Amino acid sequence: MKSKLKIVKIGGNIIDETESLNKALKDFAEIDGNMILVHGGGKLATEMSRKLGLETKMSAGRRITTAQDIDLVTMIYAGLINKKIVANLQSLNCNALGLTGADANAVISKKRAVGNVDFGFVGDVQIVNSEVIDGFLKQGLTPVFCAITHDRTGQLLNTNADTVASTLAIAMSEYYETELVFCFEKKGVLQDVEDSQSVIPVLDLELYKNLLEEKRVHSGMLPKLQMAFDALKNDVSSVVIGDAGIINGTEELCTKLVL
Amino acid sequence: MKSKLKIVKIGGNIIDETESLNKALKDFAEIDGNMILVHGGGKLATEMSRKLGLETKMSAGRRITTAQDIDLVTMIYAGLINKKIVANLQSLNCNALGLTGADANAVISKKRAVGNVDFGFVGDVQIVNSEVIDGFLKQGLTPVFCAITHDRTGQLLNTNADTVASTLAIAMSEYYETELVFCFEKKGVLQDVEDSQSVIPVLDLELYKNLLEEKRVHSGMLPKLQMAFDALKNDVSSVVIGDAGIINGTEELCTKLVL
Repeated sequence: MKSKLKIVKIGGNIIDETESLNKALKDFAEIDGNMILVHGGGKLATEMSRKLGLETKMSAGRRITTAQDIDLVTMIYAGLINKKIVANLQSLNCNALGLTGADANAVISKKRAVGNVDFGFVGDVQIVNSEVIDGFLKQGLTPVFCAITHDRTGQLLNTNADTVASTLAIAMSEYYETELVFCFEKKGVLQDVEDSQSVIPVLDLELYKNLLEEKRVHSGMLPKLQMAFDALKNDVSSVVIGDAGIINGTEELCTKLVL
Repeated sequence: MKSKLKIVKIGGNIIDETESLNKALKDFAEIDGNMILVHGGGKLATEMSRKLGLETKMSAGRRITTAQDIDLVTMIYAGLINKKIVANLQSLNCNALGLTGADANAVISKKRAVGNVDFGFVGDVQIVNSEVIDGFLKQGLTPVFCAITHDRTGQLLNTNADTVASTLAIAMSEYYETELVFCFEKKGVLQDVEDSQSVIPVLDLELYKNLLEEKRVHSGMLPKLQMAFDALKNDVSSVVIGDAGIINGTEELCTKLVL
């Protein structure tokens, strides 16, 4: 029987607010068994970009990751946020190891092709080297991934953190019974965006398709849900979406995804 | 018999100039066998500090690492520089793993006590966890350390990169026959600071003491030399100081330290 692995992705205001981050990390550190943390970037990069007077480049209404931007997110995500999280987890006796996809060649991505929109230095995940990550887990380490990957030619690429979490979960399912947990500011997928308590407890593919057809899924939730169902279709044993309270189970309200 | 391990520290303008950094990394990637890279920070942090309008705080003529500064160097050293080096090495088929001392609890330091000078968030290395680093080497990985460490209470600390390299070399000597290579902009320890070719080929403790008494050692070289002799006294098998040409041996002129 495979041993269990819990992959927790934290994003949104959990990253931006020190208190909520500390709480989430404390809960994460107390997880029993193998775990991996994936974190988003929060608003820090945008703030720093403004302080440095960097111009935000847009193409067809989408933000472009310029050469300056990829340097900036590498500093903020892989440097400041990742290392603060790692040091914090170390203080909680969780032997964290901060990683980008370039480290140990863990996650290889491909620069998104220029179509109608040139996204710049944005990568789509192609290969997760599950063997090296399994090696870290076997050393008793807890990988902490930020969403920067590389293309093996020396280029770092900005990558969607939900995608990193989901593709990690799929790849690690080769070795582990993998549970994927997406934490963000809401309590789950909402029936009604205006009502924060209107959480859909179980979201199956059929209901998801209905919500999509009725255009009732918030645009920010779309990639997360696509990634979540993709994980379930590829041997990840469970996927839940909710707020940080679900890390240690004190918050029971959340959305469980099923096929 | 112990296998060999080469620990290379790069600093100074090697970090600042893209061409010299690329050359140094190419030579480093071609080293046969086990290796570890330690890098300094170069001038990027100072430039970024100026761009962000951060004030440089001094105490008794020494620079203080404020809370803002430690965030800044974490971004620049552990984020931008470390990850660019890692991605570059990956493109050269060197399976690099970027680390701070907080990652995998690899290097623990202690915040320097406030005496006549309060250095701020500066750490002196206390413990190197050689076992976890050996585990990385055994996984076929090449650790790439920046000079940020932690104190196990969640605090990141700015640390001297020469000290990190030297203490790593001492700790790894338990498992390996360790060679320590310090690369910087000069060809070695100079007899005459004005003459870049006046390299002392062999520097022993007696000559070092003489140079110290005659105040002929450049202040910037003092910590490097102290760390270098400390390494030799603690089972490191060889220490050389020179420019980046000594990484692959194309530059023969350098200073070899002996007891």
